[in-house]
Amino acid sequence: MQRKRILLNTEDMPRQWYNMIPDVPGGLAPPMDPETRKPMGPEKLAPIFPMGLLEQEASGERWIDIPEEVLEVLSIWRPSPLIRASALEAALGTKAHIYYKYEGVSPAGSHKVNTAVAQAYYNKREGVKRLSTETGAGQWGSALSFAAQKFGLACMVYMVRCSFEQKPYRKSMMKTWGADIIPSPSDATRSGRAVLERDPDCPGSLGIAISEAVEDAALREDTKYALGSVLNHVLLHQSVVGLEAKKQLELAGEKTPHLVVGCCGGGSNYAGLMAPFVPDRLSGEPIRFLGVEPTACPTLTRGKLAYDYGDEARQTPLLYMFTLGHDFVPPSIHAGGLRYHGMAPIVSALVRDEIIEPVGVHQIPCFEAGVLFAKTEGIIPAPEANHAIRCVIDEAIRDKDKPQTILFNLSGHGHLDLASYDKYFAGQLEDYAYPKDAIERSMAALPEV
Amino acid sequence: MQRKRILLNTEDMPRQWYNMIPDVPGGLAPPMDPETRKPMGPEKLAPIFPMGLLEQEASGERWIDIPEEVLEVLSIWRPSPLIRASALEAALGTKAHIYYKYEGVSPAGSHKVNTAVAQAYYNKREGVKRLSTETGAGQWGSALSFAAQKFGLACMVYMVRCSFEQKPYRKSMMKTWGADIIPSPSDATRSGRAVLERDPDCPGSLGIAISEAVEDAALREDTKYALGSVLNHVLLHQSVVGLEAKKQLELAGEKTPHLVVGCCGGGSNYAGLMAPFVPDRLSGEPIRFLGVEPTACPTLTRGKLAYDYGDEARQTPLLYMFTLGHDFVPPSIHAGGLRYHGMAPIVSALVRDEIIEPVGVHQIPCFEAGVLFAKTEGIIPAPEANHAIRCVIDEAIRDKDKPQTILFNLSGHGHLDLASYDKYFAGQLEDYAYPKDAIERSMAALPEV
Repeated sequence: MQRKRILLNTEDMPRQWYNMIPDVPGGLAPPMDPETRKPMGPEKLAPIFPMGLLEQEASGERWIDIPEEVLEVLSIWRPSPLIRASALEAALGTKAHIYYKYEGVSPAGSHKVNTAVAQAYYNKREGVKRLSTETGAGQWGSALSFAAQKFGLACMVYMVRCSFEQKPYRKSMMKTWGADIIPSPSDATRSGRAVLERDPDCPGSLGIAISEAVEDAALREDTKYALGSVLNHVLLHQSVVGLEAKKQLELAGEKTPHLVVGCCGGGSNYAGLMAPFVPDRLSGEPIRFLGVEPTACPTLTRGKLAYDYGDEARQTPLLYMFTLGHDFVPPSIHAGGLRYHGMAPIVSALVRDEIIEPVGVHQIPCFEAGVLFAKTEGIIPAPEANHAIRCVIDEAIRDKDKPQTILFNLSGHGHLDLASYDKYFAGQLEDYAYPKDAIERSMAALPEV
Repeated sequence: MQRKRILLNTEDMPRQWYNMIPDVPGGLAPPMDPETRKPMGPEKLAPIFPMGLLEQEASGERWIDIPEEVLEVLSIWRPSPLIRASALEAALGTKAHIYYKYEGVSPAGSHKVNTAVAQAYYNKREGVKRLSTETGAGQWGSALSFAAQKFGLACMVYMVRCSFEQKPYRKSMMKTWGADIIPSPSDATRSGRAVLERDPDCPGSLGIAISEAVEDAALREDTKYALGSVLNHVLLHQSVVGLEAKKQLELAGEKTPHLVVGCCGGGSNYAGLMAPFVPDRLSGEPIRFLGVEPTACPTLTRGKLAYDYGDEARQTPLLYMFTLGHDFVPPSIHAGGLRYHGMAPIVSALVRDEIIEPVGVHQIPCFEAGVLFAKTEGIIPAPEANHAIRCVIDEAIRDKDKPQTILFNLSGHGHLDLASYDKYFAGQLEDYAYPKDAIERSMAALPEV
């Protein structure tokens, strides 16, 4: 019988993270100070981030050691399995070899815990007592809740209201790990109150929740802020995913994959998977990198590469990234983790440099793909991961006789997203098209730099 | 760094099941025909079970081959990991080595899928088109839903009403795999209607749901019935759990475990884990087997070893087992899988023969144990599994300096049980004591044989 899962042991865990910054062909544009509109150094962010992370944010080193304390916690679930999707292949009748890296085995059920643990560690090391953060679908909030309690830190989570209402079990999970949770926009912060005054029924967005969490951290001496995606150090921490997958593909007897596929919300999931394969592409391997996003929040396929704020209330530095405008509020699709207006500067630069091909997919075909995956491979995927699966299926059946190796990241399970599957079965899901008018409005508000 | 997870590869899967029947020191009493009150052969059950399973039910062979088609589906998630609970050990300050076999990695999230796949296979092989079954917490119903669709069978699930209401996501999961679900007692069957007439608000019980599912199968030519625990063939299929764990403990450098612990509802979870260790005990190894049950449904600690029906409506054969009486309706504890009035005849006989020591635990201390486990080991356990964890913690701290090896089965994750954790945090859980009066009443109704 074919080996279904390619496993690594605790001692095979990567000991260093892989930093993609030096690989970006056209380089990265620096963050800008929102007041002076001039390049800003990391020290300016010291009130909200610990120095250990700010150093990584600007590092030019390709390899950065993972602290022992971080490895110890990661070893609870890492290395994660690489699984051959043999049952899906059979159902599709394709000759493609499809492999998925399964990050749903982590405590909170997604890749997010990889960076949460590292961030909690560096904060703890520098004497921080409490972390504040935002969460969309709840994956990041629960990841940070787990990591914070592992290092004895308190944790305050601002959760995007539409997800807060759709996913009550995410709250229970965060509570189990000892965190406090509040729906955003909330009246606990100045920025939240400002939004509620304009729109009391606002479903919230990651941009708004970030504003609230940043404000919370800026106002409290004992608190720093933690971000679950977008920033360079977050992408760095996710590189363990790709490093393990690369080793596992070799163990499976596969050469370099032809396709590397992942969903893109803020970009860290996909960047983590692709990171160690980028040097292969740069040295001539014909790897195609497909970054998949919802048509309802089409940052890479319809956005603009420009300086923009990371949050709705314009408190963050200006990042050079693909963006739909910092005040864009996307439709309430069930892939809450893909409802962000911007995209990681590294991922954005790799799209600009034509290393990553962006792909947009609709909500309903994503659920169709997820259900086929559940029926064949047994795992019910998170709605975010369904975006990658949709794209993988499309590629695998485009030319069924093509022997190709496809690698994708099954970034999380959907056990806490089953209400969205219910809506899919009941025919109650909307299949949001490109929200053209809303995007045109928010794009008009891009800052001038 | 210590190896956290002890992993096996696809090719290391057990190729044979281990049958405990020949190991029971005092032997097994035969099932009795409810009409004649005389021992009955398996052929009498042919209308509701396929012959392949009935042969296993009465087999005296120690080893039975696992069909290739079953192995192929099991390989989707098996072998499951054996995990060293090093973080829990540290939190307890114990010198015990604690290992858990984690069955939550299966598609439906528990050990139940191990037998569901085998049962679906034998039914398919004999031309059955549709399976009917009952489910308590929903673990078994979702396991059978997955397995049935893997072999192209329809699946009808009668779900105990109190669980149906507590666990809506279990329904979504079953729907994802294509099953039909109805709350029990229902008006779809004669036995369901009879209960509803007596008690329209009846929260249901496994005994009632079994009556409904058996009736469904008995009345339809294309349908057979599938049971998720209790019967010998079900316990047989679960032996893969113990067989893998035994091999994994050896790989970890451990000798025979001192304690083997598991929760007991119908008995298959625990029997599966302990099976291959029983011969070691019989040949003199001082292994203690602890079977843990809720004080609210104290079959082994307060029940009687007697012939009784497996279901409320007295349709099944009489089994010689520990029982609280077939019409006992236990309190609505959140460990729905442990709300059964009886216990597998094999497990019952091993309690009688003093191989298994039964242990009763209360609901609230179980949740306390589960939360500590989630905070340390990262996995949020199913309420059923919390019973085993409570017992393991108690044993590990009784004499912290005692170097002992403890093995237990973490039979499932609690991702679809988070509402019960919410109630625990809100102080809304009841800590049901021994329901003395109800048990005395139901025990008075035991049949005379």
